[in-house]
Parts: sequence; C-alpha cells; structure tokens
Amino acid sequence: MKVLWIFAHPEGRSLNAALRDAGITALRERGHQVRESDLYAMNWKAVVDQDDFPGRDRRQRLLVGDAQEQALHTGALSEDIRAEQEKAGWADILVFHFPLWWFGPPAILKGWFDRVLVQGFAFGLRDAEGRTRRYGDGGLAGKRAMVVTSVGARASGFGPRGIHGYIDEVLFPLHHGTFWYTGMAALPPFVVHGADRATEEEAKEHQEELCARLQNLDSLAPLPFRSEAGGDYDDDLVLRDHLAPGRTGLQVHSAPGVTRRG
Amino acid sequence: MKVLWIFAHPEGRSLNAALRDAGITALRERGHQVRESDLYAMNWKAVVDQDDFPGRDRRQRLLVGDAQEQALHTGALSEDIRAEQEKAGWADILVFHFPLWWFGPPAILKGWFDRVLVQGFAFGLRDAEGRTRRYGDGGLAGKRAMVVTSVGARASGFGPRGIHGYIDEVLFPLHHGTFWYTGMAALPPFVVHGADRATEEEAKEHQEELCARLQNLDSLAPLPFRSEAGGDYDDDLVLRDHLAPGRTGLQVHSAPGVTRRG
Repeated sequence: MKVLWIFAHPEGRSLNAALRDAGITALRERGHQVRESDLYAMNWKAVVDQDDFPGRDRRQRLLVGDAQEQALHTGALSEDIRAEQEKAGWADILVFHFPLWWFGPPAILKGWFDRVLVQGFAFGLRDAEGRTRRYGDGGLAGKRAMVVTSVGARASGFGPRGIHGYIDEVLFPLHHGTFWYTGMAALPPFVVHGADRATEEEAKEHQEELCARLQNLDSLAPLPFRSEAGGDYDDDLVLRDHLAPGRTGLQVHSAPGVTRRG
Repeated sequence: MKVLWIFAHPEGRSLNAALRDAGITALRERGHQVRESDLYAMNWKAVVDQDDFPGRDRRQRLLVGDAQEQALHTGALSEDIRAEQEKAGWADILVFHFPLWWFGPPAILKGWFDRVLVQGFAFGLRDAEGRTRRYGDGGLAGKRAMVVTSVGARASGFGPRGIHGYIDEVLFPLHHGTFWYTGMAALPPFVVHGADRATEEEAKEHQEELCARLQNLDSLAPLPFRSEAGGDYDDDLVLRDHLAPGRTGLQVHSAPGVTRRG
C-alpha cells in the first residue's frame, strides 16, 4: 500500500517525531511504500493568499474557491501546492499526524487543507448524472485517512461525557467535514493522551501501540459515516426522518454497526 | 464597550470585508470603542516556530507550551504576539470574523489562537485554592467572544440534522474549546449562508442583520456551557451522572435554559 505521512510538529526531537519515525519504519518493514510531508521541515506556507495563484491579475477581486479551481485547471497553482496534490493523488492512505492545539490541527496543517484540497481536485466534482460528489465520494474517493494526534489531557476528559468533548465529535470537522467530504474513509484516530508528561517508557509504549495499529491498516473498519450518494439525506441535505429518528447532533451522521468504505 | 474585531479574509473587496466595515461602523455609531486585527493586512505570521521565542537557545528541544509560558513571563515573546495579547487584554468583546474553510478557521486565524493564547496568559492559571482555572474561568474570564462567519451552504445543511453537522457543534472547538476554555463566554455565532452566491441586495441584507445583532450585544445571552469551577464535572473531568443523565456527545456540555456569563 502507498502511504503519505503528513507531519506537523515544530520539533524534530519530540515525542511525536519519535512516534512518526517508529510508525514509518513499521510500515516500510511490512512492505508498504511511504512518502512524507514534514510540513515544518518543508517550511510549508500555511496561508492562502495571492501568491498561490502566480499568473492571476491581482486587480481582479480574489474569490478564493474560484481562483483555486481556475488555477488548478490551467496548471497555474503554485508549485508547492501541485507537489502535495501529486502526493495525495498517489497515496492509498493519508496519515495526518499533529499535536492537537485548540482542539484542531496546528495552523501549518490547517493551511495544508486550505491550500491543497481545492475545488475541482478534492471536491466540487459531479457524477454522470450531474450530482455533486461529496460525503463518501469526491476527488479523493477510494482513499483512507487517519489522524494520529497527541493531547495533554487524560483519556477520560475526551470520553463520551468528558469535559473536552468526545474525541470522535471534536474531530468531526476533520473526519467528516474534510476526509469524508472529499471521499476518503476516516480510520479511527490514534490518540496519545498525557503527551506532555510521558516518560521515556511511556513514549516507547505509545510507539508500540501505534506500530500495532499500523499492522492492521488493511483490516481496520472506517468510521461508519452515512452516505450522501446513498440517499441518506433529502434535497435540503437533512438526514431522512427514518434514520436516527428524533435525534439531533453530530452522532446522527454515523450509522453504528454499519461499515462503509469510501 | 471595547471591541476587538479580528478579521481573517484575504480580499478587501469581499462580502466579508463589507460586512466587517458595516459592523464596525455600527459599533462606533453606538459609542463603542473598536480596535482591529486585520490578519491578512498585518501579514500575520500563522505558524508557531522557533522565531516566536527570539532569545531561546535553539539547541534545547522545543516544548511549545513550556517555551510559550516561559517567554511570556520573561517578556521574550515576539513583538507581534505581545501586541495581540495587549489588544485581547484590552477588549471586553472579541469578534472572530472569517470564512469557514474546512469547517474551521482559515490557517491565518488558527495561527492567532496557536500563537497568542499561550499558557500563563489565556489558560494554565490557578485560583487561590490551587485549582486550574478553565472552562468558564481563565486568563480571559469576564470577556465575551463571538464568531462571525460565512459558508457557501444553505442553512438547512447546518441544522440539527443537516449533513454538514449542526453548526453549534461544528464550532465546538472554538466556542467551548477555545473561548470557554479561556474564560470567555461564547455569544451565538452570526452565520451568513450561501455567501458565494449572494447578490448585492443579499449582501446588504446580511449587513443589516449583522448590525441589528450588534445593537443587542449587551443583552445577548451566551451559549449555556456548563462550568468546571461550578462542579459540573468529577475528578476525571467527566460530566456528573445527574446532569444530562444517560446522554453522550457534545450537547451534554450545554445546559439548556441556563444562562451563564464568563
């Protein structure tokens, strides 16, 4: 399998860097092909701005989505973006590895999503019947994506009634709004708790747990999100009444017991 | 009242820029003091890296949270961060105004949170009894914060059963994990739908709606998040059994009908 490992941590001597090294080594030992995007090492540009569209007339008002799509189709996106799109297109599995800052990815990784997953490449495509391909379908359909992240908090605080919010729902903007939206099935996240207090021994344990997880990449069941193409939503994009009847909130978008692959 | 308007859109001729201009004008006409952080105009640095800590020995491994706190206390954070902390400290209300990209803030704004809200300034403080001040208390306690955002989607898709996720829960990492975590009460978000298809007339309507909203800033009830200091959570940071009994998910952290102010 082809794995793209996208890493967003500023310190090469961190617990996360060691975790990444262990994970990539384990994947290669199993015969997988691995490419890396070490965003800090690449000095990745985080911010969408005029420089993303080298040929564009700057006197024209910038409509970001349109400018991205137009530049994509004319081959005029900046070179760093095109390189990441090539890697994403190559991969079967994308691993997004980052410390959880303010309950989301660090800015440098948020900027990867903002700049790489442009309209016409990752979303905004239509099927033969003219329907928008989205939520279970899209430019990255057939791929899988997995979050590897570290938090300072203990696991209980991220549980179903934990004060920080249930981790599966806190990551909804990534899992559902980014991965699933573009057609990628979201694998269950790998979360390291108490990361800022981890001893050497605990760090080793985390590495072993991650490697064990990566042994089973092929058979891991993705999060069971519902499908737009499958007709789970009505024309107003509201979940049909007979699904999770009477309930509201992010949980209704999962179908427990059902496994779907993007 | 003192309002800090933090704006994160790359185009000064956008619907959002017009919305910001209308909003700030309306606030000033009512006698409020307004300061601005126009992140794109400021060329705001989005990414936490070594340059945030000018005096630090780079041979030492960078532990971001510790480095931020130490630099805060020695006055050694980079000047752009200190300027934003001064503005945040000055304000009674912080408005975060951005287009919703991948169900979160653009990287440039994510980087404002990552770099400005450092440990010792916004969180990680202790009360007289040695308890961590957090979720309803913290370095920004007593302030209020409001999201102003634009989305391409229609409102139905962001409703309680909408495919994009209920907007109140999609914004949980900001409202609860960032604002409330640091002590700021989260005001209900102002969301412009169908932003990329808005006519001139609709843009005017959005401006009028925002101005009407801003007329009532004083009396707006914040989102009713539960309180850590108030004892709603146990020692494992799990919501106590008698609150939202038997339920799970992000909704349990709100107490409908109860209004709290940070």
